[in-house]
Amino acid sequence: MTDGHDGTPLAIVCGAGRFPLVVAEEVVRGGRPVFLIGMGGVSDPEIAQRPHAFIRMGQFGRILELARGAGARDILFVGAMTRPATWRDARPDLRLLMLLPRLVRAFRGGDDHLLSALAGAITEAGFTVRGVHEVAPRLMLPDGASGALSPSPGEIADARFGFEVLAALSPFDVGQGLVVHNRRVLAVEAAEGTDLMLARVAELRASGRLHLKGRCGVFIKAPKRGQDRRMDTPAIGPHTISRLEAAGLAGIAVAAGEVMAVDGGDLIESADQAGIFVSGFRQGLA
Amino acid sequence: MTDGHDGTPLAIVCGAGRFPLVVAEEVVRGGRPVFLIGMGGVSDPEIAQRPHAFIRMGQFGRILELARGAGARDILFVGAMTRPATWRDARPDLRLLMLLPRLVRAFRGGDDHLLSALAGAITEAGFTVRGVHEVAPRLMLPDGASGALSPSPGEIADARFGFEVLAALSPFDVGQGLVVHNRRVLAVEAAEGTDLMLARVAELRASGRLHLKGRCGVFIKAPKRGQDRRMDTPAIGPHTISRLEAAGLAGIAVAAGEVMAVDGGDLIESADQAGIFVSGFRQGLA
Repeated sequence: MTDGHDGTPLAIVCGAGRFPLVVAEEVVRGGRPVFLIGMGGVSDPEIAQRPHAFIRMGQFGRILELARGAGARDILFVGAMTRPATWRDARPDLRLLMLLPRLVRAFRGGDDHLLSALAGAITEAGFTVRGVHEVAPRLMLPDGASGALSPSPGEIADARFGFEVLAALSPFDVGQGLVVHNRRVLAVEAAEGTDLMLARVAELRASGRLHLKGRCGVFIKAPKRGQDRRMDTPAIGPHTISRLEAAGLAGIAVAAGEVMAVDGGDLIESADQAGIFVSGFRQGLA
Repeated sequence: MTDGHDGTPLAIVCGAGRFPLVVAEEVVRGGRPVFLIGMGGVSDPEIAQRPHAFIRMGQFGRILELARGAGARDILFVGAMTRPATWRDARPDLRLLMLLPRLVRAFRGGDDHLLSALAGAITEAGFTVRGVHEVAPRLMLPDGASGALSPSPGEIADARFGFEVLAALSPFDVGQGLVVHNRRVLAVEAAEGTDLMLARVAELRASGRLHLKGRCGVFIKAPKRGQDRRMDTPAIGPHTISRLEAAGLAGIAVAAGEVMAVDGGDLIESADQAGIFVSGFRQGLA
């Protein structure tokens, strides 16, 4: 799943958080130059340490101009793009405005269709939209246990059950994450995102509404089946482990090769220290 | 869907909240005597105003004895049975202990199977387990708008979409409720329950994480498809309207004849005052 690149730089549109920096570092380590396109108030200012330019939210045409100017043919999107505070600051350019009717139609079909519509417009402009799994496959969590611990047979059964539920939800473009214990779905992730869903499990247990003994329950994470993986790679990192600890969960089950590890070394170290398993399931998306 | 009862009293096992009292009143109004079985620390003390007895959580055999002693052949369960604080106080009797292996097996299959297992044991003891829709059909929300307002075509589409998602989740014994806007699932109810799910939508909007303008979004509620409706009737009441107002939602879509209205008069009055529609959909479970 490498992209067999031709020496052209990879243009990386950088959403929030450290993910874009981690991906850029990995791509550069692999011998390919990068050109980072950051969004003011969203992207980590550290992207300025590599060839880069800053734009405002909504300047879609500018992304294409910058990528072309840098000699890039491949474009990658990494990190969360939507922060309400920054949308207030958005400067939609002509190109984005021309796309609007298409985006509005796509929006009615859910996030997933919206991303596919954007990817389609970029492709029409002559670029190839890449996914993290293509340009930095080593960042994706592999099949099997990544740390010292492995899931028990019961936890494996919970993980498989969770992947089935996610697959059932997938046509409705909802659900990248779930918490399951003993084949019971304790929480489903929708607009609140992973962190708030895990915080909810912690609260339900602390308040006694969820009466579970000891470290138990599995957090299951996979891309939505229909999701344009190139545009929105699910990711976990060391902070995910802290969330699991707070929620008293036993481990993380991910679709192998489909979920990115941010700060993989720290992630596994935190997981091992916390006694939490991190395991990839190849049948995740079966 | 009436039960054509034979004059024997209806034994009502009363969970938490006002639902059991409302159902008892409606049954008595219909000319049938009731015998209320309350649980200390769980049931509303007001049940003492009708023929009744109090037991402790877990006294399953005692329920059957009391029902038999009262001359009842039909048993109805109403209201939430599980409050962690009271389970600590539980006194499982011999009959419940004899059921335990069966209940543990059922528990692994989810709440739904657990209820079915209990219903099975009651049936084997010679009783008929009734549902609210049988003994008090007038309490169930009917097809169409119950108040002054009707859903818009877009809201109807969101409701149908939501019923589809609930149907897809049903085999996994999760999801009695959802919030949908423009065919996008904003929240899915799991172990947290309806109130906390609606509170979450309110918070996501207040914090700007969910950026929606004005009163919009539909709360969709239906029994799980495989759910033993007799044992766990979904219900909404005036407090549900307050939750919707806080979350800025436009209305409630329920599966017609499958969801109980607690304090129906107040519910509709609050809904009308708040400008919120309450509408039953016959195709809800199609």
